Amino acid sequence: MKKFYIVKSRRLRSTPYTSRIENQGVTAYTIYNHMLLPASFGNLEKEYFHLKEHVQIWDVAAERQVQIVGKDSKKLVQLMTCRNLSKAKVGRCYYVPIIDEQGGMLNDPVALKISEDKWWLSLADSDIGLYAKGIASGLALQVEIEEPDVNIMAVQGPKSFKLMEKVLGNKIKELKFFGFDYYSFKGNKFLIARSGWSKQGGYEIYVENREAGQSLYDELFLAGKEFQVKPGCPNLIERIESGLLSAGNDFDNQDNPYECNFDKYIDIESDINFLGKNALIKIRKKGINRKLMGVLIDLDKIEMTEEIPLYNGNNLVGNLRSATYSPNLKKVVGIVMTKKEYWDKKTPIELKIGDKKSKGTLCNLPIQK
Amino acid sequence: MKKFYIVKSRRLRSTPYTSRIENQGVTAYTIYNHMLLPASFGNLEKEYFHLKEHVQIWDVAAERQVQIVGKDSKKLVQLMTCRNLSKAKVGRCYYVPIIDEQGGMLNDPVALKISEDKWWLSLADSDIGLYAKGIASGLALQVEIEEPDVNIMAVQGPKSFKLMEKVLGNKIKELKFFGFDYYSFKGNKFLIARSGWSKQGGYEIYVENREAGQSLYDELFLAGKEFQVKPGCPNLIERIESGLLSAGNDFDNQDNPYECNFDKYIDIESDINFLGKNALIKIRKKGINRKLMGVLIDLDKIEMTEEIPLYNGNNLVGNLRSATYSPNLKKVVGIVMTKKEYWDKKTPIELKIGDKKSKGTLCNLPIQK
Repeated sequence: MKKFYIVKSRRLRSTPYTSRIENQGVTAYTIYNHMLLPASFGNLEKEYFHLKEHVQIWDVAAERQVQIVGKDSKKLVQLMTCRNLSKAKVGRCYYVPIIDEQGGMLNDPVALKISEDKWWLSLADSDIGLYAKGIASGLALQVEIEEPDVNIMAVQGPKSFKLMEKVLGNKIKELKFFGFDYYSFKGNKFLIARSGWSKQGGYEIYVENREAGQSLYDELFLAGKEFQVKPGCPNLIERIESGLLSAGNDFDNQDNPYECNFDKYIDIESDINFLGKNALIKIRKKGINRKLMGVLIDLDKIEMTEEIPLYNGNNLVGNLRSATYSPNLKKVVGIVMTKKEYWDKKTPIELKIGDKKSKGTLCNLPIQK
Repeated sequence: MKKFYIVKSRRLRSTPYTSRIENQGVTAYTIYNHMLLPASFGNLEKEYFHLKEHVQIWDVAAERQVQIVGKDSKKLVQLMTCRNLSKAKVGRCYYVPIIDEQGGMLNDPVALKISEDKWWLSLADSDIGLYAKGIASGLALQVEIEEPDVNIMAVQGPKSFKLMEKVLGNKIKELKFFGFDYYSFKGNKFLIARSGWSKQGGYEIYVENREAGQSLYDELFLAGKEFQVKPGCPNLIERIESGLLSAGNDFDNQDNPYECNFDKYIDIESDINFLGKNALIKIRKKGINRKLMGVLIDLDKIEMTEEIPLYNGNNLVGNLRSATYSPNLKKVVGIVMTKKEYWDKKTPIELKIGDKKSKGTLCNLPIQK
């Protein structure tokens, strides 16, 4: 496939770490929330094996925050998600599907309850701040909504625990999965969550002071030498195998949260109030007839720019939405919006690209050997 | 400056014309409304001179439409913009600043009144569909909001008029600036507006049928040979000289429409109802202390990734937001958010990049020789 450059501009915002990762060998970007998100340091497969064995520092500043502050902040956050947040606690992260009034998926951020009247939504790629502003204006809610200058760096991989302990002290070992707390480095306070867009373990550091963040970034590389630290970025192979969904790739507003297997993040039973509740009640009653599944395909490479239909004979099985070659499984791994009649079967599927036909099998997510 | 590739995915949506422009030599993209927008065919300066003399076909499908249909559609569109649309006519385009409740700029689309109860907002780069959905849900408006599969191709340049007449018939000569109407090609109907993101004249074809659009695209190149037609894209040099603002580059939600010189698109006097009206009344009363102006700088190249401060001695004059070298004016041309005390003066300014200092002068927009 031909390669194309990206033309930078102020609109495609740089991050506090951009100059650093460009010195460290980033080769390609994607754009995410109007910001540069590194997408490769030259060798996806090497980066995949490194991530699963060592530790990487990622510039994920493009995970922008929607900050919602004020008396009605809890009400507004709840209005946007089907997940019941009535018992949400300060210091905890919540994975929250954001839906519209038709029940369509708009985003799947992590919500952080910072204090009783202050929330952050750590976004996937869509302007949920505008959705929040629209609802708040329409309902005259008492909230302030903005995008604070928070620039996340992630520390991911099995050795992230030792590296973070070395740099930030052993108090960080107490942090539980999807918990967050504040930690000091050189006199600066950092909000750190035990989270991240891989299943290899690690942290996300919500940097509120650019210079302090750059200094911590540099220290993590210095201290990380003994753990073979490298710069990295969300890894397409790892995230597909792990079943971590990507908004805009695996789902969009034409899909509902049931179809994305988000059942445990949906509460239509209790009396919480959210937009799209009636729509989800109807969808649930009727039942869904497609959902996201995994797939393994006998191919040694693939590049996706749009949905690709998968067939069983002449019958459409579903649409492939993300895919890449896994050097671990020695097949192409992918995520498929799959028709109901094929959910329970180990259905053989066929993929056709140009004249070439390839065979494969549906499987569950995460994808295992 | 180092160059970086873009990693494609389904999330960075291709257009119906992508395969064509890739065969025609596109070299670089930007991302705009989660979609590929061509940014260069290899030589910005050549493309600039060609655009000013001949005719180009642009893949600007990334100018996505927010479609608002229903009884309350007019009310909703008006709520989002400070421009008075009470007398808007079917068949006309309206440049409309979209603002939030604080008066901050969210987008500057062209609004098309398709019928009494149907509007399109032809967007710059932000998810105004989510803003519209939020407001509609909050106020329980009777509207349907969606992004229809409309993929604009633009025909721009002084010879666009002859080319379009040749392909679509001479009825198109009657179309006035910012008017739109329907025209037939090979049995398919196309909504065509006399508009576009250059000041060289031309049309935007709102393609609702992908295959029909591809066929028209091909025909425009065939018929355009005698006019030296080429593929192209919005040209950074031409648009800065022409003073065409770019949302996210020249302004964002920290800027208000007065600061963007949009006074003629603001109506705080009449009784129309829009979000941010109170904010704009306050801003107007207080007066603004900065606005967008042009600048000419004695430099032969520049690449922008963020705001650059401009000084007069030790005093900040303003911030450069977009800039590029103009082979026509033999200087760097740019757009500057300029402090009030420098508006009326031909203030000499100084730009510092690294150790290099360059001199320049503020000027009006559009930038003239």
